[in-house]
Amino acid sequence: MPVKVAINGYGTIGKRVADAVRQQDDMEIVGVVKRRPTFEAFDAMKNGFPFYAPTEEFIPALEKARIKVTGTLPELLEIADIVIDCTPKKANYKPLYEKHNVKAIWQGGEKHDLTGLSFNTMANYEDAIGAQFARVVSCNTTGLCRTLHPIQEKYGIENVLGVMIRRSADPWDSKTGPINSIEPILNVPSHHGPDVATVMYGLNIQTTAVKVPTTIMHLHSVVVKMKATPSSQDIVDLWENTPRVALVDSGEGIKGTSQIMEWAKDLGRKRGDLFEIAVWKDGVHVVGDTLYYYQAIHQESDVIPENIDCIRAMCNVETDKFKSMEKTDKAMGLIA
Amino acid sequence: MPVKVAINGYGTIGKRVADAVRQQDDMEIVGVVKRRPTFEAFDAMKNGFPFYAPTEEFIPALEKARIKVTGTLPELLEIADIVIDCTPKKANYKPLYEKHNVKAIWQGGEKHDLTGLSFNTMANYEDAIGAQFARVVSCNTTGLCRTLHPIQEKYGIENVLGVMIRRSADPWDSKTGPINSIEPILNVPSHHGPDVATVMYGLNIQTTAVKVPTTIMHLHSVVVKMKATPSSQDIVDLWENTPRVALVDSGEGIKGTSQIMEWAKDLGRKRGDLFEIAVWKDGVHVVGDTLYYYQAIHQESDVIPENIDCIRAMCNVETDKFKSMEKTDKAMGLIA
Amino acid sequence: MPVKVAINGYGTIGKRVADAVRQQDDMEIVGVVKRRPTFEAFDAMKNGFPFYAPTEEFIPALEKARIKVTGTLPELLEIADIVIDCTPKKANYKPLYEKHNVKAIWQGGEKHDLTGLSFNTMANYEDAIGAQFARVVSCNTTGLCRTLHPIQEKYGIENVLGVMIRRSADPWDSKTGPINSIEPILNVPSHHGPDVATVMYGLNIQTTAVKVPTTIMHLHSVVVKMKATPSSQDIVDLWENTPRVALVDSGEGIKGTSQIMEWAKDLGRKRGDLFEIAVWKDGVHVVGDTLYYYQAIHQESDVIPENIDCIRAMCNVETDKFKSMEKTDKAMGLIA
Amino acid sequence: MPVKVAINGYGTIGKRVADAVRQQDDMEIVGVVKRRPTFEAFDAMKNGFPFYAPTEEFIPALEKARIKVTGTLPELLEIADIVIDCTPKKANYKPLYEKHNVKAIWQGGEKHDLTGLSFNTMANYEDAIGAQFARVVSCNTTGLCRTLHPIQEKYGIENVLGVMIRRSADPWDSKTGPINSIEPILNVPSHHGPDVATVMYGLNIQTTAVKVPTTIMHLHSVVVKMKATPSSQDIVDLWENTPRVALVDSGEGIKGTSQIMEWAKDLGRKRGDLFEIAVWKDGVHVVGDTLYYYQAIHQESDVIPENIDCIRAMCNVETDKFKSMEKTDKAMGLIA
Repeated sequence: MPVKVAINGYGTIGKRVADAVRQQDDMEIVGVVKRRPTFEAFDAMKNGFPFYAPTEEFIPALEKARIKVTGTLPELLEIADIVIDCTPKKANYKPLYEKHNVKAIWQGGEKHDLTGLSFNTMANYEDAIGAQFARVVSCNTTGLCRTLHPIQEKYGIENVLGVMIRRSADPWDSKTGPINSIEPILNVPSHHGPDVATVMYGLNIQTTAVKVPTTIMHLHSVVVKMKATPSSQDIVDLWENTPRVALVDSGEGIKGTSQIMEWAKDLGRKRGDLFEIAVWKDGVHVVGDTLYYYQAIHQESDVIPENIDCIRAMCNVETDKFKSMEKTDKAMGLIA
Repeated sequence: MPVKVAINGYGTIGKRVADAVRQQDDMEIVGVVKRRPTFEAFDAMKNGFPFYAPTEEFIPALEKARIKVTGTLPELLEIADIVIDCTPKKANYKPLYEKHNVKAIWQGGEKHDLTGLSFNTMANYEDAIGAQFARVVSCNTTGLCRTLHPIQEKYGIENVLGVMIRRSADPWDSKTGPINSIEPILNVPSHHGPDVATVMYGLNIQTTAVKVPTTIMHLHSVVVKMKATPSSQDIVDLWENTPRVALVDSGEGIKGTSQIMEWAKDLGRKRGDLFEIAVWKDGVHVVGDTLYYYQAIHQESDVIPENIDCIRAMCNVETDKFKSMEKTDKAMGLIA
Repeated sequence: MPVKVAINGYGTIGKRVADAVRQQDDMEIVGVVKRRPTFEAFDAMKNGFPFYAPTEEFIPALEKARIKVTGTLPELLEIADIVIDCTPKKANYKPLYEKHNVKAIWQGGEKHDLTGLSFNTMANYEDAIGAQFARVVSCNTTGLCRTLHPIQEKYGIENVLGVMIRRSADPWDSKTGPINSIEPILNVPSHHGPDVATVMYGLNIQTTAVKVPTTIMHLHSVVVKMKATPSSQDIVDLWENTPRVALVDSGEGIKGTSQIMEWAKDLGRKRGDLFEIAVWKDGVHVVGDTLYYYQAIHQESDVIPENIDCIRAMCNVETDKFKSMEKTDKAMGLIA
Repeated sequence: MPVKVAINGYGTIGKRVADAVRQQDDMEIVGVVKRRPTFEAFDAMKNGFPFYAPTEEFIPALEKARIKVTGTLPELLEIADIVIDCTPKKANYKPLYEKHNVKAIWQGGEKHDLTGLSFNTMANYEDAIGAQFARVVSCNTTGLCRTLHPIQEKYGIENVLGVMIRRSADPWDSKTGPINSIEPILNVPSHHGPDVATVMYGLNIQTTAVKVPTTIMHLHSVVVKMKATPSSQDIVDLWENTPRVALVDSGEGIKGTSQIMEWAKDLGRKRGDLFEIAVWKDGVHVVGDTLYYYQAIHQESDVIPENIDCIRAMCNVETDKFKSMEKTDKAMGLIA
């Protein structure tokens, strides 16, 4: 019997998880929760997802806008096996989930302490098997795990320095700036490094971060001191065979994040998403034991496959991470 | 027998026309032409379109990059009924098309004089029936025709003033600026007005234009002096029933072009395209005989349906514009 | 004896008015009010302006940051003849000013109703003579008055349509977006038109407005139906001789707002301000009785000269608007 | 007798060097060279700088635009002691300077090999004394030298990793993008590291670089492994006493490059320039022997003081770098 999945918060991440769940044969959406009758609410209706309000008080405004409301979140939690919490950071639904005895997955905007268990498929799938609560790490952390984990496995890592050049707003977000400024995150080293260590236990990684005025992808400049001295080509070959990592090439006209997203659009996925981490093949350089590379992160979508895997692990559907990844990726059409 | 269509220039417009042709049952792609082995060339290959080089000299570099080249443009023209020219403005292939006696459609970057026949489905479909050469008018002109034509038909138009706030670069174009400047087009009134009159014969329309630093959609602020005094709601109702016009509502969270494109992504079309012209329902205001409205133009895709209709007209496949539109729109999944 | 001027709110406008007052010989700054110890507070100190807190409660934090606080706003109002209110829109100090029986000038962010008297030097200087309260109209309205008033005087105006392409944030404002979107103001016609009519009584003007992602200047595309048919050159000549209007020329490399601001920087004024309205000489086109032109507005500084004139009018220092303008402009170094 | 200085290329850097030379008492401008009659040419005239054309052929167009042309570059070189070459990279005037036996300074866009001598005041002033040709290193390299040199002197440096987040265009440049993209420099490590070593001989420094869509300042995220373990405060104290380094504080509202430039505008210098390197006080963090910091570079102006010092060294006006710096900085109004 398929896992019954509820989506609490039908925005950037929520709507993508809902679509991805629908593409799997071992899970199904039993309801999505949204507060306001935005265009995304109408999209949920059109997709045929049962629509729930957070509480009774939101129903009148939703119905006035002609949204058909099936019930409230507490009612949804009664029929769900697991809820994917994609609400804003300040919401706190954990007590409600506990009360209804439902499993829950949060996103990377939350702190590790909320669940005590952070999740990245490749790094620690096994630890999530049967768990009640987990947090899928953020888009940036997921990206770092995807490329660092195979290096760690094959060559060993002394330490990592990552500088995150962060997009300031999502493409749909027209309130947030800056329009013309660069803003460093002054708490140095930044929180991103420790966040990677919540799933790649014991990794020595420091990060700094800078916000820049784009809406298209985060970009990481990463420097890794390895315990071995592979060639640049060795690293490229390794990532060619790493799931959810896609190599791009400036020789094919992909000079920056805008062309990566254009290439992703041509792939034909819904919303032009890029679930893979894009790494520039011609930006991989090993000097001695030091590896330099650049990667780009589609902040809106890279964590979606990990959410699917995490559902499988927590609901005991699959114990082998490679089998889960294969299933997820095939259903979602990732680059093989 | 389906019309045999060649695409010369497989970039922003070319690749979209190719996809749209493939969705129709009365036409087919017999080949696409591209000069360089960019990521879009690989996309063409993956789509199974026969790949042609412009001339012999481009073949070695393409083959070196592992593009399978079927032949050259002249060879393709021998087997095509019609070629869709999506090459940059400075290219001049007309003599070649004449030599090979193939029909051809150019895009709005070209001048009206190149063909003497400009095309917009609603405005002048009939004039293109059986024609050898035509030019589908630009994204901006297409957008103006879509909303003005029904007003003209139903209420009559004294005159139009349109101010075009133009995106400066396409999303994939990272060379072109400005980053932080507003640039007026100083030739006033701008060329956009007369361009509309190449298909809406005799319309009294003046336009000015300003370039702004975005990559997402053009936006038009339009003021129409009508020959009648309908209400704002009358105009909204009219456009609700106009093909290829989509009404959006700021009340659903659509405040600007970024949210329109997000909404379009949710529609699930390839590349998140919006073939329709988006008009703000709550931005339509009639004061006396004067209509004010705002519309947004997805510069990369709005002309694609018109290209398909134009093929049908020129190749005598269909003489009724409404039947062609219906067929095109259904196949491409436009909002009914 | 010089007019004693207080500045309430030492930000974008406040600091500029303070500098401009200091440049005059018939007025002086007796104090500036600021809430928080930002870099601008330190700038006020360095400039030697007596520093006041809004109320007692703000003093400890200011003093902790080593700002020398002279007193509070009520104390300042006791020694001031007039206060220039440059606080954010939501503040409401009018009752306090009334209580202390001090004259006050507000900025264009406030509504006309607050004072019942709006002010633009050229349009209605006389009406402010001896007034207790006035509002200097916004940067956009000031810009429209500067160029429209001489047209009105010399040729007469049937009606005006202005489309305002508005910068979304000031250069220092890194919170506000959008980064990549265009947002129309859906209340059409916009409030800008009626606002012009608060000082150019009876002018028939309609406006629409669109926000774009820049921080550099507003740009207006203006269409004026005149009661006469001057030539384009006549209009250029008229503005050549209009105070506070500066003609620029794309032939000298000034294509957009970024080059206007670069040119302004070369003028050598503090902060690179441009107090004049910039009009493109080669963007002025008269067709029949219709005038098309583009103008650019330095939103941070164009209203400063009007604030100075308004002080003179309200405090009965000068009854002739031309004499006040000449004095203001000479002291501030405007283009003669 | 003052050094006779010619400026070849009166653009972003040239006009600033000209202004700075004029502020000194031991040098003077004998002429500036510009090709076209842009607004900057008129600015040169207004400043009273003798205006020269590169060659005879440029004179007619300049004179037609009413620029008063004194002569040609070869004529100017006859009367100059030294020429500051601020022409675009592709120009090659070295043979001409050799022919006229005039000293010359190039800017950082040129390669080290052009002169064999690169220059940064603090790092290697002495090596330029009496030299015929030198290159003042780029804005980024100058910035790194300013902050790294005192660390090197006081604590010793094992190695440096710098990630440069580069503005993509200058504020006046409206042609260059991207509008919405992040572009890594794929040649890793980038050329910036070796460039620092042309003046800080033997420094072990690696750099990577990323272009982002702003026009305001470069920002560096720097990580230094030191040979000692000072505290964060020790480093702050060191830079407080370092010339041409200015500490800024996010607590005073300076969160990013836009606020730095606003603060600089308030300083009241021409064009709002910031000749100092801005370092966030609260972004300085020492962890063990590793120092993390962020600095921001005003790309248009930080090298101007070094150009002045370089003139003095090359023309044997002053042999002590500290005396030259003090003289330059006092005349230009730098923060003491």
